[in-house]
Amino acid sequence: MPRMRLDLAYDGGGFAGWAAQPGLRTCQGELERALSTIARERVRVTVAGRTDAGVHASGQVAHADVPVGLAAQLPERAPQLARRLSRLAAPDGDLVVRAVGLAPEGFDARFSAVSRSYRYRIVADPAGDPLERRTAAHVPQPLDVEAMRRTAAALLGLRDFAAFCRPREGATTIRELRAFSWAQEEALLTASLTADAFCHSMVRALVAACVRVGEGRLGLAQAAALLDERQRSPLTGLMPAHGLTLVAVGYPPDDLLAQQAERARARRSASDLDA
Amino acid sequence: MPRMRLDLAYDGGGFAGWAAQPGLRTCQGELERALSTIARERVRVTVAGRTDAGVHASGQVAHADVPVGLAAQLPERAPQLARRLSRLAAPDGDLVVRAVGLAPEGFDARFSAVSRSYRYRIVADPAGDPLERRTAAHVPQPLDVEAMRRTAAALLGLRDFAAFCRPREGATTIRELRAFSWAQEEALLTASLTADAFCHSMVRALVAACVRVGEGRLGLAQAAALLDERQRSPLTGLMPAHGLTLVAVGYPPDDLLAQQAERARARRSASDLDA
Repeated sequence: MPRMRLDLAYDGGGFAGWAAQPGLRTCQGELERALSTIARERVRVTVAGRTDAGVHASGQVAHADVPVGLAAQLPERAPQLARRLSRLAAPDGDLVVRAVGLAPEGFDARFSAVSRSYRYRIVADPAGDPLERRTAAHVPQPLDVEAMRRTAAALLGLRDFAAFCRPREGATTIRELRAFSWAQEEALLTASLTADAFCHSMVRALVAACVRVGEGRLGLAQAAALLDERQRSPLTGLMPAHGLTLVAVGYPPDDLLAQQAERARARRSASDLDA
Repeated sequence: MPRMRLDLAYDGGGFAGWAAQPGLRTCQGELERALSTIARERVRVTVAGRTDAGVHASGQVAHADVPVGLAAQLPERAPQLARRLSRLAAPDGDLVVRAVGLAPEGFDARFSAVSRSYRYRIVADPAGDPLERRTAAHVPQPLDVEAMRRTAAALLGLRDFAAFCRPREGATTIRELRAFSWAQEEALLTASLTADAFCHSMVRALVAACVRVGEGRLGLAQAAALLDERQRSPLTGLMPAHGLTLVAVGYPPDDLLAQQAERARARRSASDLDA
């Protein structure tokens, strides 16, 4: 079956996360329902970043294998198909299909991805900002942004991030954190993070470590030393989900995708044999 | 009675506008209820900009004459009082009292104000942005931002804005539009406007004129020529309320306030005699 790439954005506030769950409104559930309606058969959707309940996305990417008849609408009727999917999946506009297209050879939204970028927003101000209350965490005291910037810089690199990961059987916690910076616009602080991949709730734990340092509750050296811990540290905690947005997923150029997919398949079969 | 200044922010989505109306949730209604509870007597609130249903504010200003016992909490317990008012007025956080303080001599939130600044946000993109759907209007086609900037510049100055005002018996439509600019960040367009004062729905009409030009449905010369019309033009229409935010209200230095208040009182008595 031809494979379709979908570019998505959503307000996570009305969803019980990305992953389909019986009886709950989820991004995957609504999107699969919409696609299956249009395709007139059951369509499954695979996503680059399985966001938690409450987490938003402006640049999420997914793929779906669809019947030839549906794929034939692409690329000519792509804008109309994207609009129709958006309307069916979320009539209130809290999830939109920004674009659809035929996926290049070897494309897999999850396994082809070479980078994920997230944004985390904080309003650091006694009163809070009513217009940001669904999209930014509220920290009611001033934060030392320079100390937060130094903390972020100290966490960069290819490392074992076990101290910032919810443990998951057999999954690696070695990740390459390529960018972690803080921008300030009056009371609004925005963290931008990019890694090859993040483990579960890793962004919210990394941001929490910076906030603890910014509040003066944790030293910069202590935060950096967390990297030596082998399990999640109670020193940092976890920032709330609603401040987090998946902003971009990076893929290699089309001509490398097919090669990469071949290698990944070989690797996965090898690890299946190991298990 | 001592006069208190209140600095406010709210998400207009859950309010039927600023002005108190029986049986409806309004900013004035909730704030007066909270203040009256704390003061243990009926307290009235006067605001700088009476925003319409759905319009937001990040820098709204109001005043209230309060009993001496309540005013005595200022300035020492001002942060606590602001938090208590916020919690009482809007437990869900969609209205916050950012600051309270004793008003300087002669201060009147409405009549002392010498400028009002508004922001209008538009997402110009086929899909729209789920995270901006409560705070930005959605225009599903690309807009010519340069043409919108020229339109905004052509509307600046001290003029009769009757073509952009909802008519109101006896009220002047002569205003000084001091700033009107457009900033672009990818699909998000933000208009910033400052005037001595705006008449009713004037910002939404000015922005609508720019959008018509940006869509190519109205010429720049036509938009500028609207200023010669004596009543609201059907050529422009009105942008929706939820893209609009009152961001700031300007006041003269404290030492000029008392003089200015005296002159304004004299002016108002004179105009009462004329009527």
